[in-house]
This record gives sequence, structure tokens and C-alpha cells, in this order.
Amino acid sequence: MITSVGNQKVKQIVQWNKKPSLRNREGVFVAEGLKMFSEVPQSSLKEIYIADGFLEGIRKTERSRDIWGKLEECGYETVSEEVFSKMSDICSPQGILFVARQMHYTFEQMAEASDNPLFLVLEDIQDPGNLGTMIRTGEGAGISGVIMSKGTADIYNPKTIRSTMGSVYRVPFLYAEDFHATVRRLREYGVMVYAAHLRGEKCYDEFEYRRPTAFLIGNEGNGLTEETAELADTYVRIPMEGRLESLNAAIASALLLYEAAGQRRRGA
Amino acid sequence: MITSVGNQKVKQIVQWNKKPSLRNREGVFVAEGLKMFSEVPQSSLKEIYIADGFLEGIRKTERSRDIWGKLEECGYETVSEEVFSKMSDICSPQGILFVARQMHYTFEQMAEASDNPLFLVLEDIQDPGNLGTMIRTGEGAGISGVIMSKGTADIYNPKTIRSTMGSVYRVPFLYAEDFHATVRRLREYGVMVYAAHLRGEKCYDEFEYRRPTAFLIGNEGNGLTEETAELADTYVRIPMEGRLESLNAAIASALLLYEAAGQRRRGA
Repeated sequence: MITSVGNQKVKQIVQWNKKPSLRNREGVFVAEGLKMFSEVPQSSLKEIYIADGFLEGIRKTERSRDIWGKLEECGYETVSEEVFSKMSDICSPQGILFVARQMHYTFEQMAEASDNPLFLVLEDIQDPGNLGTMIRTGEGAGISGVIMSKGTADIYNPKTIRSTMGSVYRVPFLYAEDFHATVRRLREYGVMVYAAHLRGEKCYDEFEYRRPTAFLIGNEGNGLTEETAELADTYVRIPMEGRLESLNAAIASALLLYEAAGQRRRGA
Repeated sequence: MITSVGNQKVKQIVQWNKKPSLRNREGVFVAEGLKMFSEVPQSSLKEIYIADGFLEGIRKTERSRDIWGKLEECGYETVSEEVFSKMSDICSPQGILFVARQMHYTFEQMAEASDNPLFLVLEDIQDPGNLGTMIRTGEGAGISGVIMSKGTADIYNPKTIRSTMGSVYRVPFLYAEDFHATVRRLREYGVMVYAAHLRGEKCYDEFEYRRPTAFLIGNEGNGLTEETAELADTYVRIPMEGRLESLNAAIASALLLYEAAGQRRRGA
């Protein structure tokens, strides 16, 4: 059992939680909680840490068989409660924390996995919770992948990971080296690119999204940059009553993705 | 200029930011930032505090005429930057903070303001940011009001206020003394009550929401309680691809409210 907060592994976890550059150098991320653990693919697991006394709790959970299988296959270290609090990124930690391998997807994988892809394309989304919610909603709507500008929040930020509720393992994503070139490639693949934009004249539910579709969503405060907005085939407007200037970016994404998902579901 | 963090008014603001019971006893709340200030009704304003040097910043903003009008009419106190940081609830404060009167709405006001009301009814939503986003989205969808159980997060929590982006001033709301009785009253008023529920057999977009409608949304982790779910006329399901167990509560609310808003818009 690790009982010292000065332990090298403990210090390493704290660093990985805080610093994207260190996570990326090692190609890992840190996640915690039973839900995130029960859904992580076993092949991605590298290290598992369990707070002293928490094993008892695991025995009582619904998914305990899955969880035990992974623990036995991969092995784990027990740490004192004090050490666990130090490693954890949350105020009331659940007692299980792990290190997993980062995922890697190519543009081609995402574009070719489906005959009729649906993409979410994000420019400089800042809030990790918003980003995580978008990925979670994207899974629900059945998207092929999320393409992000390099200025978008880090998908491996502990807050993003948590708010994906496990979708981060299943929704393909990509930080585009050249964001504009990647949006242009979508069009080469026959994907229609729609931008949620205040200049949109027609409402988002007046278009057909039954063919390959991508939705461009801009930064929470500033929306899409001019240069990016110009790459869209069409601007769409989400109508708003009252005196609202905009919707939350995750809400706007959800309305667009579910409009497309609904049309595809009903059209089938 | 207030330069001491020990000043009584400064201590009072800090308390009001932290403690719902003290805010409620005085019937006030604290908000900050130029956007929230520019949208607050002048009649609600009680006290205004401006960080030393920030007046210059206000002169340059787009809405400066509105803002100056309010400052002159209500008067304000200048505080040192150190004092301002102490009063502020956020890490990078914008330099303007104010105390406003809490809003009060009755059930009858909300139910009778429109011939064809649309309600959001929330049971025990925990996350202040989620609650604020729901109110913001609700304004966009044109709702008549938000009815909340007493276990729902505090609408005057600084995080809720911020995430409403100003909608908190415009969307009527109510913490129901007797939540179940209030839901039953909706039905007496001829409002159809739909619950987002995993037991829903038909998809949310297979129903008509053109007549008076309320959507019941449950707690983030546990959904609706059995007792509350039983009060609904109909359960509706939001379909999900992948292995998702649920959507974020603010996302689910948005999909339902905008489905209703869209039907009403297209039907008109």
C-alpha cells in the first residue's frame, strides 16, 4: 500500500492531471470513478489505484463482475485515503483512479467508418465541461466523430473526461493540425458543412441532413471566426425568443445533431 | 473609495455570495460583469461596486450609454482592486458587481401570462451551471416559466446567475412549496405533463406539443422520483445511439423545449 504523498507515482498522477503537455508526452490520461472505470476498454488500461477500504464498496456495485475482471487482469495498487485525495482531481473522490492510453484516430477512419457520416466540428471551445457534454451528446446522436481546432479545450482534461460520462472512449475525435484544410477535406468527401451562425437566414429545422453532414460550432463567447465561417456551405439559424443573444454552445450542438439524427431515424 | 477588506459592506457581499439563507433573508442576490449589469432592470438595483480604474473600461464598451444611465441613476461606490477581488466570486473578475432584489412570481402569473403556456418543471437538479443553462435555453424556446422542487439548486447561486447570461431577469420561476401539488395544479389548468423517462416507449418527437405543455426533468444522477414520474400524463423517450445511459439534464431539456417551440413556430 502506498501511504506517502511523496511517492513518485503519486506525484506523477498529480502532474498528469494538471499538465496537458506531460500527459501528451507519455500518451496517457487519468480518469476516476466506478462509471469511468467500468467503461474503459481493458486494452487501454495502464495503472489502477484504489483507496484503502474501497474494494469493499466495489463488491456491492451492480457492475462488480466487469470491474473485478479488469482489476484481476491488470492488477492494482492500494493507496491510503490521504494519498488518494492527493491524487484525485475531485472534492469527494470515489476511491478508484486509473491511467489509460490516449486514443488515436485518423481523418480517414472517421470519414470512412460510415456511408453517411455526421460530424461535429468545433472551433476554440473553451469550457472543458461544455466539450465533454458535446461528446456525450454526440454519442447519443450517433456521430461519426468530432473534429476540433487546436485552440479547443483538452479532451483529456479531467473535467472533460468526467462530463463525457464514458463517451470519450467511444466517440472518435481529432485535433486538426490544419483546421481549415480539414474542413475543406470534409467537403471533398461530399460532406455538407453547416455553420450555426447569427447570419443564418433559415432555421436549422428547415434543412435536410439525411446526407453526409457536418456542423460547425464556434467559441462560446465569440462564435466562429470569419475565416472558418466562410468554409461552410450554408449558415443555419437557431431561432431564439426573448432577448437572448445566443445559446450555450453545447445546447446549440445538441439541437443540430438531434435534428439530423431525428431526420435520419424518421427517414429510414 | 473602499480600500479595506474588513469593510462591513465588503464582508456582507462575501456572505451573500456564499450563503443562500442570508441572501433570502434580505431578499437580494449578487451578480457581476458588464453583461449581467447591462441587462438588470434598473428598478431591481440596490448597490453597485466598481473596481478602481474600471470606469475607463466601461466608457469603451458598446453598451456604455445604458450602463452610464444606470450608474448615474443609482449611484455606485468605487473599491480598490484588492477589495474587488475579495468581493468577487470569479477568478478573473470584470470590475463591476452589484446587489439586486430577488424576483417573485406566483403560479397564477406564470400560468395565466399566456394562452398556450410552456413550462419546464425541474426535480432536484443539483448543478448550478446546468440550472442556469436551462433557464437560458428556456428563454430561447419561449417558455412561460420554470417550476422547481425545493431540492433544486439555488437560482441565486453566483454560478447559476452567470450561466443564465441574463435570462434570470426575464424567465419567471418558482420554488414550489408543495412540488407534487403544483404539478397537479398544472393539470387542472389544462396543461399536458410529459416526463422525460427511460420507460417512455415513444420518441419525444412523436408527440404534439402545440397545446399547453409542461416537461418534467429529473435529477442528473437519478432521474425523476417514482412519485413525481407518476404525476405525468405521458412518458417520452429521447433516443440514444451508442452505449449512453442518459443525456445531460440541460441537453434533454433543450431537446424537448425546442421540439415544442419548433412545432409551435411551424404550426403558426
